[in-house]
Formats: sequence, structure tokens, C-alpha cells
Amino acid sequence: MPSEVSVDEANAYLIANFEAVSTRSNVDIMADSRAVMSLVARPEHLRPGGYISGPTQMSIADSAAYMAVMTKLGIVPMAVTSNLSINFLRPCIGDAVIADARLIKLGRSLAVVEVDIKARGADKSASHAMVTYAIPQES
Amino acid sequence: MPSEVSVDEANAYLIANFEAVSTRSNVDIMADSRAVMSLVARPEHLRPGGYISGPTQMSIADSAAYMAVMTKLGIVPMAVTSNLSINFLRPCIGDAVIADARLIKLGRSLAVVEVDIKARGADKSASHAMVTYAIPQES
Amino acid sequence: MPSEVSVDEANAYLIANFEAVSTRSNVDIMADSRAVMSLVARPEHLRPGGYISGPTQMSIADSAAYMAVMTKLGIVPMAVTSNLSINFLRPCIGDAVIADARLIKLGRSLAVVEVDIKARGADKSASHAMVTYAIPQES
Amino acid sequence: MPSEVSVDEANAYLIANFEAVSTRSNVDIMADSRAVMSLVARPEHLRPGGYISGPTQMSIADSAAYMAVMTKLGIVPMAVTSNLSINFLRPCIGDAVIADARLIKLGRSLAVVEVDIKARGADKSASHAMVTYAIPQES
Repeated sequence: MPSEVSVDEANAYLIANFEAVSTRSNVDIMADSRAVMSLVARPEHLRPGGYISGPTQMSIADSAAYMAVMTKLGIVPMAVTSNLSINFLRPCIGDAVIADARLIKLGRSLAVVEVDIKARGADKSASHAMVTYAIPQES
Repeated sequence: MPSEVSVDEANAYLIANFEAVSTRSNVDIMADSRAVMSLVARPEHLRPGGYISGPTQMSIADSAAYMAVMTKLGIVPMAVTSNLSINFLRPCIGDAVIADARLIKLGRSLAVVEVDIKARGADKSASHAMVTYAIPQES
Repeated sequence: MPSEVSVDEANAYLIANFEAVSTRSNVDIMADSRAVMSLVARPEHLRPGGYISGPTQMSIADSAAYMAVMTKLGIVPMAVTSNLSINFLRPCIGDAVIADARLIKLGRSLAVVEVDIKARGADKSASHAMVTYAIPQES
Repeated sequence: MPSEVSVDEANAYLIANFEAVSTRSNVDIMADSRAVMSLVARPEHLRPGGYISGPTQMSIADSAAYMAVMTKLGIVPMAVTSNLSINFLRPCIGDAVIADARLIKLGRSLAVVEVDIKARGADKSASHAMVTYAIPQES
């Protein structure tokens, strides 16, 4: 079963609606219940030591989770993050960061997504996030 | 008991070390176990609808938590976020966002900070974050 | 504005429906958006060192959050916890534990509750929990 | 690489030290960075509807995470949970619950464990927990 939204449609949606996201990250994969995004780090994404910063990792985790929800629901502009919890595991050292998001529950009003974040080419995860999206109810 | 680090020292530290943070947010208060930061929203901080975005709120929550730790420990460059959990409560509608961080536990290896985030002038919180910082051990 | 459910009604509901909870904890306060519960520790609630255990604190935090939701919504048997995140701050040393729950957001499908947990008589919190309840939608 | 602690040693440790845990759950697997525990549900573990309760799931998630840490560190009585965050995904319906814990980061002062919880025989997870343990520093 493929994604309800293609990679091209996902990138076009982000470019049209999220200036901050679209200028810095890219949707690479839209599959059934899974989305992968990447970001090539620029100076504003780094923290002392040259590591990719925590806020950069949180931002791409949130975006990738949103895309994972869209693989099943299609474009849902009014879905909003209700909770994001992230554990930072190791320094994120590299020229780019990859967020791999997998939908683990899709209910009527909530979706829960697990996101693995690592530097491109790294063996081990830099961080791990759980993201809950609230799905707007039709009324 | 005042802060170990003044407002001016805190802002100077951020400007010198965090390009992304320093260009967009300001330390307003450094008190005993409490730090307040603010950010005037620019287009890249907004999401559809004109609200201040979730990643913008997460980023300032993380920074304000770091500053709250510094009020007790002084400048600790190697402290790193180990966990951040945020609940988004309502749309963050306004021209600026304020993060008010309060240190609720300072142990030898961990600090826990509660952060209230709201739009400037709003009555109610837009989000609420709990942030854990790992404190480097001297060895 | 008082609670939609009285202390007596809340305790009766727990006794009738939750064997585990009712045999070990008590609702002390039901106010507007706030509920307080307490539990007198027995051997099965302790961990090595004689402290009140983490699972005991999590359990009473969850129950008190549920009661806080009921102060506004009345008895909602099908409300379920969707997320609970707890930070343990210090050992919980005492003969009883108190959970003080405050509703910080009540939406159509989600309620968010902040819970402060401490040993009876203690100055400082033993733990701090954020609990999200999913509210059943009428259909 | 096997576990530093065997299944028999792990169960003996729990029985000797945790009255509440030992009377209701069992360590089934101790492997390298992984521990599995199970609990046969009794009336006090159930919530209305006959489901295995949230607090029961939180308790076994915490215990299994502790055991996963022990697979690498051996018996560490003074390790304590610093954060537990759990997402409840679906009703936990069955006669027993299984918690499968995998250590995803072991640092000097913190260990992070991912725990999958399901009813015995179920295909899908009932809940998913992230547990952080603080490791005592030798001094």
C-alpha cells in the first residue's frame, strides 16, 4: 500500500506553507506509515563543537512525524502536534541529519509517531522522539 | 540570592556561541533558579494561520531551560539537553513568544526545568515543557 | 465554581470500578479543575531504602489526573490516559504520598493535567507528572 | 555477549528487594541489552472493561527497563528512574502482559531504555515507553 501523498506533493506542501521548514529540509521518502526527511546543516543549525543542534533535531522530528501521518490521511493542514518527547542519546556529528518517522498508532483523534534521528552516515541514533498529533474532527 | 550569571553575560554567551539562538531570542531575566527569554516572531517562526510554530516554541524552551541552569551553576558550556517533553495547549498567537523557565531540581548529574511558554500579552499558556539537562561531571 | 463531582462521589466511583486504586488511595479534594489524592504507604508500595516506589507515584498521579478531568466533565468512564510523562526529582520518604493534580487544558478531545507528587509533610516535590487524557467523542 | 545477570539472578534480586514487583511479575529473558518480563493479570491489575490497567503497564515497563540496564551493568541497587514517558496506544486485552525492554543508550550517568508493552498473544503494542535511569556515580 503506497502513501496517500507522494514525495513531490509533500515537498510542494511544505514549500507553500512552512517557510522555515521548506528552506532547510527535504522529504526523501513517503511510504505506507513511514516518512523520511533530511536536512543539510548550515551554520544556524550547529551548536558549539560543530554538532547539529537539539532544536534542529526537534524541528525535523516534528516535520517528519507530520509527514508520516499524511502517508495515511492525505494532506491534513489542521493537524497539530499535541506532545513531543525527545531523548538525546549522543552528539549529532555530520553534514546532514536524517529523521525516519514511523506511525505506530492512528486513531480517530490521535496519531502517535516514533522518530529515529541520526547524522547522515552514522551507525547510531543521535536522538529518539515520540510525537503525538491531534487530528481535527469533522463536525 | 541573585543569579550566578547576569542578563548581559547570558546574552553575550548566546551571541558568541549560538548563531541561530542569538539572532532570534533575548534573555530578559536571570534570577535565582529562574530565567525568562523572549523572541519577536519573524516569518520563519510562523506556521499556517500565522501562529508561532511548535519548533520555535521548543527552541526557546530549550534555551530558557539552559539559562535557568546557569543561574545556579554559572556558565556550563558542556551541559546538554538529555530529554525535552512538551505539551502544546493552544495556538500561540502574537508578535512575540515568552519562555519562563524555573529550575525544579538541581542534582549532581541532572537538572530538571519546567518551562511555561506563552504569546506576549496572552493570559493562558501556549505550551508547557519539561527539560532535563545533563551536567558534565568533573573528572 | 465547584467541582462537577463531589469527593464522596469520586471515592464511590473508584471503589466501584477500580479494585486496585480503591484499596490504596483516597480522593481528598475535588475543586474546580483540581483534585488531590493521598495514599498511606504499605509494604507493597515501598522500594529498597523504604522509599515510596516510582510505580506507586505513577499510579496515584494517573488517578489524580483522572479526577481533575472529572471536576469539569463529570463522571467520564471511557476517558483513557493517552500519555503520561513523569520526572522523578528526589526520594519520596514518608508514610503517605499526596498527588495534587491541576487541569491546564481541556479541549474537545484532549485534557492535559499537571501533577505534583510529594511525601506527606515534605517541602519539596518527589516527582512531577504531565498526564494527557483522551476524551471520548460522542458519535 | 550474554547478560551480566542471569534470569534466575534477576528474579532472585526482585524477590529479595521488591515485594510488590516480585509477587506479580517474572523476568523471562536477560540478554545483551535486552530484558523481557511478564505478568499474569489478577483482579487488581484490571480496569473497567477487563483491560490490563495503565499503572500495571507502567510498573512492568519500569521494572523491565531496570533489568535491561542490569544486563550490561550487573546488579546496581542504587540506579533510579529519572524519567518515564509512556504512550498508550490501544486497550491491553489478555490474561498477561509482556514488556520487552531494549537499552538504546548507556552513558556514564544515564541509561535510556525503549520498552514495548503488549498483551500476551497480541499482534500490536498496547503501549510504548521510554525510560531513563540515573546511574549512581562512584565517588
